Amino acid sequence: MNEVGVYEAMRSLRAVRKLRPDPVPTEVLNRVLEAATWAPTGANTQPWRVVVVKAAAPKKQLGELYARGWKRYSDGHRAHLSEMPEDIRPAQERILAAGDYLADHFGESPVLAVFCFNPKMMAITDIKLDRVSVVGGGSIYPAVENLLLACRAEGLGCTLTTLLCGYEDRVKEILGIPSDWGTACTIPIGYPVGTGHGPITRKPIEKLAFLDRWKNTYSD
Amino acid sequence: MNEVGVYEAMRSLRAVRKLRPDPVPTEVLNRVLEAATWAPTGANTQPWRVVVVKAAAPKKQLGELYARGWKRYSDGHRAHLSEMPEDIRPAQERILAAGDYLADHFGESPVLAVFCFNPKMMAITDIKLDRVSVVGGGSIYPAVENLLLACRAEGLGCTLTTLLCGYEDRVKEILGIPSDWGTACTIPIGYPVGTGHGPITRKPIEKLAFLDRWKNTYSD
Repeated sequence: MNEVGVYEAMRSLRAVRKLRPDPVPTEVLNRVLEAATWAPTGANTQPWRVVVVKAAAPKKQLGELYARGWKRYSDGHRAHLSEMPEDIRPAQERILAAGDYLADHFGESPVLAVFCFNPKMMAITDIKLDRVSVVGGGSIYPAVENLLLACRAEGLGCTLTTLLCGYEDRVKEILGIPSDWGTACTIPIGYPVGTGHGPITRKPIEKLAFLDRWKNTYSD
Repeated sequence: MNEVGVYEAMRSLRAVRKLRPDPVPTEVLNRVLEAATWAPTGANTQPWRVVVVKAAAPKKQLGELYARGWKRYSDGHRAHLSEMPEDIRPAQERILAAGDYLADHFGESPVLAVFCFNPKMMAITDIKLDRVSVVGGGSIYPAVENLLLACRAEGLGCTLTTLLCGYEDRVKEILGIPSDWGTACTIPIGYPVGTGHGPITRKPIEKLAFLDRWKNTYSD
């Protein structure tokens, strides 16, 4: 197979929110899932599982839940639009419109990949700090990023969503997830309606990296 | 540039803990850092920064801190080795030995990339749940995975460590990180002493994926 290059895949991985209903062939989906398994995890415990939801009934239930959550979130966000600077408003409106589309069609995605994790299988080094913990995510989201990059390589649209985590009890009920597992994100996967992946807009290194000490300009 | 394929990079990304002291050329390091900037983040806020530590003095301080943390962790782990099944003990002993090497040389790594994050820039959907939060990590560790994959593509050794998060106050003091930012991981980067990246050992899809519902066997 003539693979997409690793930089090329990373550089063109977009949040693709408009998916066609066409099914994803099993061998393609298997490659995408296998890519997730390769990711590093603390002490190689692989403390995550993924529920690959293809059946219509649970997808519909998750879709209804997502639409409810999106309405709440986007209503709040829209209420603040008028206070935003004129120049960033159009971009925010486009993101909201794409989010509306995703929310309307979430349950019709060909695949919903629901990532779960077990905190008991993790050494969470920031759990006692006086701030929100993130380190558990260090053994989950590298696998999620691998899955997204593999989707990109296969021409599959996808986007990392965490909205359903706010409704975790209900998600766990729908999918039969045991009480000691949590949910980390849900990835809708399918072939894109439009052009799918492509150019991205990101801050450059100079805005995100410092040399040796905070605020020390990083430059080459 | 003839790029490494994206699957090839993911499939051969190992935790490389033995690094040569040779410096990493700036243009190579820039490619690796730029790859991190491309990663998806919630609402594209890119709520992370990275302190790229190359200077000897702060690396030495971080190295001493790491060695102290590793001793505490590995003493505890070694105490439990004798209770472990015979067949998994050799692998655990190899991991501990490689960890000892890393701890002895952490501060001599050519580069220590310290990832920081600002929770105020994140919508953390699982923050109110009755379990440890991970969702903040969803806007950090995809960038970290991109950086690791880029290291793999460049022939640079690297490994995701979170041990220093347990000593965050001291790390923030050493690097001048402001109070409203947290630390998510530190990645030692350099050319490998041995063969570096290569074959990995992971659970197969069948152990990590379920179809439609928890415990429903995923098979093709």
